[in-house]
Amino acid sequence: MLFARPVSVLNLGIASFADAIRSRGGAATQLAWAPPAAGDRRVGQALARVVGEANIDKANAQAVERYLAAQPKVTGLGVAGEVLPGMKERMILHAGPPVPWQRMCGPMRGAIIGAILYERWTNDVASARVMAERGEITFEPCHHHGAVGPMAGIISPSMPVWIVSNGTHGNRAFSNLNEGLGKVLRFGANSAEVLDRLKWMQHTLAPTLAAAFKVLGELELKPLMAQALHMGDEVHNRNIAASSLLIKRLAPALLKSGAPQADVAAVIEFIAGNDHFFLNLSMAACKAMLDAAHGVAGSSMVTAMARNGVEFGIRVSGLGERWFIAPAPVVNGLYFPGNTIEDAAPDLGDSAITETAGLGGFAMAAAPAIVKFVGGTPQDALANTLAMTHITLARNGAFTLPALDFAGTPACIDARRVVDSGILPVINTGIAHKEPGVGQIGAGVTRAPLACFTQAVMELAACLPTA
Amino acid sequence: MLFARPVSVLNLGIASFADAIRSRGGAATQLAWAPPAAGDRRVGQALARVVGEANIDKANAQAVERYLAAQPKVTGLGVAGEVLPGMKERMILHAGPPVPWQRMCGPMRGAIIGAILYERWTNDVASARVMAERGEITFEPCHHHGAVGPMAGIISPSMPVWIVSNGTHGNRAFSNLNEGLGKVLRFGANSAEVLDRLKWMQHTLAPTLAAAFKVLGELELKPLMAQALHMGDEVHNRNIAASSLLIKRLAPALLKSGAPQADVAAVIEFIAGNDHFFLNLSMAACKAMLDAAHGVAGSSMVTAMARNGVEFGIRVSGLGERWFIAPAPVVNGLYFPGNTIEDAAPDLGDSAITETAGLGGFAMAAAPAIVKFVGGTPQDALANTLAMTHITLARNGAFTLPALDFAGTPACIDARRVVDSGILPVINTGIAHKEPGVGQIGAGVTRAPLACFTQAVMELAACLPTA
Repeated sequence: MLFARPVSVLNLGIASFADAIRSRGGAATQLAWAPPAAGDRRVGQALARVVGEANIDKANAQAVERYLAAQPKVTGLGVAGEVLPGMKERMILHAGPPVPWQRMCGPMRGAIIGAILYERWTNDVASARVMAERGEITFEPCHHHGAVGPMAGIISPSMPVWIVSNGTHGNRAFSNLNEGLGKVLRFGANSAEVLDRLKWMQHTLAPTLAAAFKVLGELELKPLMAQALHMGDEVHNRNIAASSLLIKRLAPALLKSGAPQADVAAVIEFIAGNDHFFLNLSMAACKAMLDAAHGVAGSSMVTAMARNGVEFGIRVSGLGERWFIAPAPVVNGLYFPGNTIEDAAPDLGDSAITETAGLGGFAMAAAPAIVKFVGGTPQDALANTLAMTHITLARNGAFTLPALDFAGTPACIDARRVVDSGILPVINTGIAHKEPGVGQIGAGVTRAPLACFTQAVMELAACLPTA
Repeated sequence: MLFARPVSVLNLGIASFADAIRSRGGAATQLAWAPPAAGDRRVGQALARVVGEANIDKANAQAVERYLAAQPKVTGLGVAGEVLPGMKERMILHAGPPVPWQRMCGPMRGAIIGAILYERWTNDVASARVMAERGEITFEPCHHHGAVGPMAGIISPSMPVWIVSNGTHGNRAFSNLNEGLGKVLRFGANSAEVLDRLKWMQHTLAPTLAAAFKVLGELELKPLMAQALHMGDEVHNRNIAASSLLIKRLAPALLKSGAPQADVAAVIEFIAGNDHFFLNLSMAACKAMLDAAHGVAGSSMVTAMARNGVEFGIRVSGLGERWFIAPAPVVNGLYFPGNTIEDAAPDLGDSAITETAGLGGFAMAAAPAIVKFVGGTPQDALANTLAMTHITLARNGAFTLPALDFAGTPACIDARRVVDSGILPVINTGIAHKEPGVGQIGAGVTRAPLACFTQAVMELAACLPTA
């Protein structure tokens, strides 16, 4: 007998060592530890150079300060072709990093065909598909034009968009308007019902809302989002409180706007019937806050996470307009009856901009009831928020979490910390059917792929002056 | 030395025993235990007779079943003098158990003077006071007329009331309409501004809402309240989610009601500006659920808790219309700047009907953000809900608490368990200034007085057949 008394062991690394001790009557606790950079020596060396690097830390402090100081507010509505920087005729914007038509996922193709029909560039699905295939349309990411869109994220020139301005730094962000659930363009549907709704949104919803905002003036979004966090939203997959608070602000203004009574009634009914209506404003607010923090030389702060249904991409403040991409995961979530993970398109949409800004999955502690929609338990929701504190640079005191004693949401992902800890950003997401036109088939919690962050770390290290 | 090894002791009862052990180097844990019935031998004997008594348990099961099965819904609005059972001319209803004018607290007197002026029974404060003093007005509790009112709870014959019907058992409950915050009748204010608002509520708000309910039909209240619990309300002192959800339902109906456009706009603005608007509906719903459980012979289930600013009273299902009363506590809560507990009227209002129904303080685990209003920490909020499980007969599966893994709210207070455990029902409450006309000066968490429950237990024991 090697030991006089029963052994009690903390085991780190290969789990079978602990099993062996347990099988001989000892106590063994297996630590959930993994080597930094997933054990990749080359990445580990890059990581060693960038972790604790004073210039990166200093740049991050500046990026964080700019994110925290941002004050996004709705200043009105516009038409994509008129207000989006760089938007051109025969251009369609999509979610996530760049992707050519040939590689696009089903729902994105379906939505693009819908947008071509909506724009009346042609009259039927078959010829719309041909236009797309022949390169007659330019496809670019929303993010390249200051915009974000949920799921397929399709924005075509005549679509109405929210205009969100950052009062502190003057930058503007844009998003399309939320169509509701069921058969909708963003999940790849393009039937007459879908196009009719989009036309109504263009000709009635947007102008009526614009009239209301003329009465209302600017609408500060951070206080409204903060209040929604105290009402069980995480303002990504749960927006019922934020949408309700928005209606409370909009309804009196709509009634004073001078818009036709029937339009006002239809607009209020439409918004009241869509608990996700606020999502697109939440996304534009997050985009405005994060764009303010983008472009700080040397910063390792992540300023965008977005998915196109094929690839997952991130952008980093100090690394310019470049995307660091990896295959988009398929989400193991809660599927609606009759659907399984086999039916799912890979992760899709610009809505992970909310997580990038410390909301959504990062603020899940605010939204215990969301687990009925995305799966897991309320304890998991708390744990997700707490885990994110290990990979973020700040707590956002403007967004407090009652269940965590009013601590701020963990915000400003540091690409270095993700690679160093192996803790991946958590994302609450809707799940689209892989075929166009079917729509949403579930929701769940997923993780950003590590490879995006390791590439960013390699690039950060490469940018450092050689010693 | 008496003991060979250091002693480790659980001490129960007199704490100085534990101190003595600790001072000699032993470990002592003091249990938070108190003798049942606060050590009163006579009450203890009564308690011994009623605890576990099969007929009481059986009656309670029936009362609980009736409470759980109740389906309160708004069926419309009415005028107090026309729809409240037993309401008479020159009668004014007030919160809590009966109290004569001579013993009423300041805010209740102020509110009654306001109601006399509102009814135009006289034209000035001085003569209104004389009318009240001379016995020209009949004062009775709201609860004696199927009604509930927050704070002073004043309902006079021409005031509009909500009508809430229990679809399962057919009983009806009523409440007045919420005036908002600031200078309001329910806190004892009676200035022209207060009376003008009440007149507007009578002539515009109520008829416009009634027109909307003609379009809307009946509005089920339990699903709306359940949803609000998932959005951070406890539907007593926090009603922002419920009020927002109500607006979402009402606004489209108001716009279709045919009511004048200006009235619709004013009504929407009024409700949108009052985060407590839903409170009175919550109270009426609770009253409807609890009245369904009242009158089950032998039951020890509490069916009302109410305060008149002087006394705290409870009613028990099996003990008829009788009130068991004790002095109302003064609330040690969070006071608005410039106010202290010295300025406070004792606990006031029928709103503890929400706690009686398993909401309010009993559902505080749903509303961590409320601690910013009533004091304490989010952990206290969870602890309050958990403590209430020891004195209640059921979990209400219609009202689930996300933070407690979707457990139902603890509901149906058993007077026996309160006396047996010494755990007093927790109540979230607003605090009125003791002088009429000043208004709300704070909010806090208080407890129902034990004496109400000991009297009920004595009476329950007295009603048992002698062995």
